Order: sequence, then structure tokens, then C-alpha cells
Amino acid sequence: LVQEDVYIHPTSTVDTQQIGESTRVWACAQIMAEVHIGSNCNIGSHCFIESGVTIGSRATIKNGTLICEGVTIEDGVFVGPGVVFTNDCYPRSPRLAAAGSRYDTKEWLLPTVVRRGASIGAGAIIGAGVVIGEFALVGCGAVVARDVSAYAVVLGNPARARGWACQCGQRLRFREEVTCCTNCQRRYITEGSAIRPIEIE
Amino acid sequence: LVQEDVYIHPTSTVDTQQIGESTRVWACAQIMAEVHIGSNCNIGSHCFIESGVTIGSRATIKNGTLICEGVTIEDGVFVGPGVVFTNDCYPRSPRLAAAGSRYDTKEWLLPTVVRRGASIGAGAIIGAGVVIGEFALVGCGAVVARDVSAYAVVLGNPARARGWACQCGQRLRFREEVTCCTNCQRRYITEGSAIRPIEIE
Amino acid sequence: LVQEDVYIHPTSTVDTQQIGESTRVWACAQIMAEVHIGSNCNIGSHCFIESGVTIGSRATIKNGTLICEGVTIEDGVFVGPGVVFTNDCYPRSPRLAAAGSRYDTKEWLLPTVVRRGASIGAGAIIGAGVVIGEFALVGCGAVVARDVSAYAVVLGNPARARGWACQCGQRLRFREEVTCCTNCQRRYITEGSAIRPIEIE
Repeated sequence: LVQEDVYIHPTSTVDTQQIGESTRVWACAQIMAEVHIGSNCNIGSHCFIESGVTIGSRATIKNGTLICEGVTIEDGVFVGPGVVFTNDCYPRSPRLAAAGSRYDTKEWLLPTVVRRGASIGAGAIIGAGVVIGEFALVGCGAVVARDVSAYAVVLGNPARARGWACQCGQRLRFREEVTCCTNCQRRYITEGSAIRPIEIE
Repeated sequence: LVQEDVYIHPTSTVDTQQIGESTRVWACAQIMAEVHIGSNCNIGSHCFIESGVTIGSRATIKNGTLICEGVTIEDGVFVGPGVVFTNDCYPRSPRLAAAGSRYDTKEWLLPTVVRRGASIGAGAIIGAGVVIGEFALVGCGAVVARDVSAYAVVLGNPARARGWACQCGQRLRFREEVTCCTNCQRRYITEGSAIRPIEIE
Repeated sequence: LVQEDVYIHPTSTVDTQQIGESTRVWACAQIMAEVHIGSNCNIGSHCFIESGVTIGSRATIKNGTLICEGVTIEDGVFVGPGVVFTNDCYPRSPRLAAAGSRYDTKEWLLPTVVRRGASIGAGAIIGAGVVIGEFALVGCGAVVARDVSAYAVVLGNPARARGWACQCGQRLRFREEVTCCTNCQRRYITEGSAIRPIEIE
């Protein structure tokens, strides 16, 4: 089912057929069976994408990013280079006797979602079971242990909220309840501890 | 000496013969000569394992992990994806004139040990010369600069002790001197700033 | 133009001709066109080096390091394993409609420079647009968001100045305005919030 204009670099190992049109996969990437990738994505070199991952359309996955089972990445997401996802809060080697029956079922697996338009900076580590809200911006090197609000900018280890980002990527400054992006003029309003765009496109 | 039922993905580069039975090596991994790996291990895609590394049996080494000379990983250890080990506290390019004679011998090399049953979370960075105690749990994204006690849970940059883990992986809660794992019922006792299991298996 | 004694591992993908003599490139590395690399460098396995990168001579780039467009690495630099460079402070997927015209030109790209003799520890993340001064030492796992002074040692997330390093790599201790390296006897003097060597070699 791989579309005709999909590009797959000859050094990569791609075992899924579920890749949408115009998606490109670069050198030494490994994409396992039972991965779904939408159209018009770019998957950088040295990426690893495990069975059970779903990636929407128009996503950019930079080099060396490791995406494990249970992760869903929605449309238009940016995942920077060297990002690592996780799916187990208390990992043990499944081959360790003391781990007992922990890995007999998939109960240990915590799913993670990255909502549409969000960006994850280089080298960020995404804890198991979190939701990264739409258009959120995770700073480079951040270690995300909790859910991230839509449009929030989070930084540090552990990652903490440090501001807001526009859909276009620009940082937003709130002096009043409503603000206007200095780059694209989208407008946002605060709502408790969250924000939302005033005109939804 | 590679055992007959070892699996090595055709895209990987494996220059050691010292791999125990039932061990599997996945895509684009590079394992140099003079590496020793025990039986029933899983070595993920894009791993790099340098000469002089020893890995025990039943270990799980996830994707994109980089293990340098001087590292010893004991039986049953879990090393998450994107983990990086180090062996030099004051690195310079050996080709830099100012580095002088620093790299003429191996005196600069600080060995690191990960004791049996320990777990290292995704994207953790392990400083040169540390010992990670048995069944310790290094959180994802932690930067470990000091030794980690057996059964300790460490988090952050720099990594600090934040609690205790059972052999099975479960977090332990101490309200008194003795506690019982809520998952597997192993019992532990505090001993100064350490803990130990009451019944050793 | 690749010099005759350059070594390129057969599993790597090297699309530039601009590689100086005695440079070696290891397994599964990808080096794009329009990359310039000097002589006597070592490029570890699984590295990715994007078009528009310049690397001087006698540099050591360890395994799994990701170097993006806009990065310049001068002579004699050490880049540890798993280091990630960045070039965009507010990244969005270029395929995302909301990103608008942001990626139509290269105005978003912030260049980064690593000055001669500097060292970047394992797993460090280098923010877009920073300058890392000569002989500076970025600790392993540091997340560098600001310029780093020459000879400075920086640690943490975000990286903060924690001391000084000699050209040879040794940590320097200042009890007075002038100090002498305990390893190589080079002498340094403080100058405001910076230091400089007394005899320049």
C-alpha cells in the first residue's frame, strides 16, 4: 500500500506498507511492521519507529529520533533530532527473573499522544503516558514527565511551563487577557490556566 | 564462537565473536571487536558498543544506545533507548596538540559498572566512573554524575535520589523501617541511608 | 576531492567530496553534500551531518552525534557521543499550514559556532545561535541556551558556568588572579568575568 511517490532511502529498513503519498524516509531509518504514517511526512536518518506507532500527515521527524510502541503523533507535528519517547514508567529487562510476569501482557504500556501542530525540541525526552497539547512547544533538552497544555512552552528537567507559543511558532506575550501574535496576528485569550485562539481556523 | 541461535540483522556491523546463545542484534547496530555479550540479550537498532565493553546475560539494550570502552553491564540490566555512557571526565580531541600526552596511555579512562537488575531510563547520560547499584532505577533524562545506591531511584540533572524501587520495578514506600512491595510482596528494610531485601532470592 | 587516505566505512552514506586527508568516517554515518570536513578528523558511527556544516581539522566527533545546517566546528574540537545541535528556536513542521511562510527563506536559521579546542560532553544539547568559546568544556547532558565563554566549564539544564578548564582539559582552580594548571603548567589570568592564558601558544 506504499504510495508510488514515497521515497525510501536504500539503507533504511522499512517493514510497514502503511505510508502515505509523498512521505520520505532517509538513511539508516528503521520502521517496523504495523506502523502507520500519513502523507507528506519527512522521517530523518537513523530514526527508529516501533510497531504500534501512528504518525499523521505533514509531520517532520528529524534525525535519530526513537519512537516506541504506544505513541501517536498527530498531523503537522515537528519532532526534533535525537528525541526519545518512552512507554514504561518502571522498566525492567523483560528477561530478568525478578521482573516476574510484568511483561506477559501489555498492561505496563502507557500510551503517549502528541497533538496536532505541536513541536518537540531536539533531544527532549518524553515520559510515558503524557499528552502534549496541540501547538505546544517542548524546548530542546526538556524532560517531560507530565501533560503539556495546548500552546504551552515547557523547558527544563523536569519540564515546567515557561510561556505560550502561537500556532505559527512565535512566542506570545500576555500583558492583558487577550494578545495578538507579533508575527502572524492570530489572537489568543487566556482561560484560567490555559489559552485558546479567538478565531479558530 | 557466536552461538548458533544468535540473530544478527543484516544491516548491523558485528566484529566480535563473543555473543552468547539466543542474543539478538537489530538493524544498523555496530558492535566492535573485543566486546563480550552474554546469552539471551536484546540489542536494539542503532546501538554502538565499543571494544572493551562487557554485557552479561538477559540484558535489554534499547535502540540508539551508545556504550563506550570501560563499561560493564551485569546480568538482567535494562538500558533504555538513547542512553549515552561516558568514560572521560575532561575530554579533549586526542588530535588536539594542546591535549599533549593525555591520550598516549589509558590513564584517562574511568570504568563504569551497572550492577545486576538495574534499569536506566531513556536518554539518561551516565557520567564516567560511576557505579549504578543493583536494581537501581535511573529515571529517563537523568544525568548521573555520582554513584547510585542499590535499589535507589534517581532523577534529574544532576541526578538525585528520589526514592526506592523493588527488584520487580515497583516503587517502594517506606512509612516504617520495613516495607513490603505492593506488587510482588518482596520485603525490604532500611539500613542507614541504604535499603536491602529481607529475604534474598 | 576526497583525499586518498580518507577512510569511509562501507555502511556509511557520504555525499560530500570535501573531506581532508586522514579523516575517518565510521559505520552508518550520513554526511550530506555541501559539508566541509578538514584533515585528520574522526567521525563516529551513526553521525548525521547536514548540508552547510563546516568542520575543521583534528576534530573528534563521537558516535550518534547530529549536526544540523548552520553549525561550524573549528579545529581540534571534541564532540562527545549523542550530542545534538539545533538551528531554530521556534520550530514548527515546515509542512504545517499554520507555519505559514516561515520556511520559505532561511531567516529562521540561527548559526552556531564551536571555537577551536572546545569540548562538548556526551548527550549535550546545543541551542540555536550560540557561540561556544575556545577550549570551553560543556559537561555531559548540559543544555546550552546561551554563549559559553572561552575556557569556561558549563553544566546542567540550562547550562550554567561552574568553573574553568585548561587547554589540556584539566580543571583550573583560582585562589588568586593568576593560576597554573596542575597538569601542564600553562598559566592563566582572570580578566573581569573571563580568563585568558598568560603565554599564548
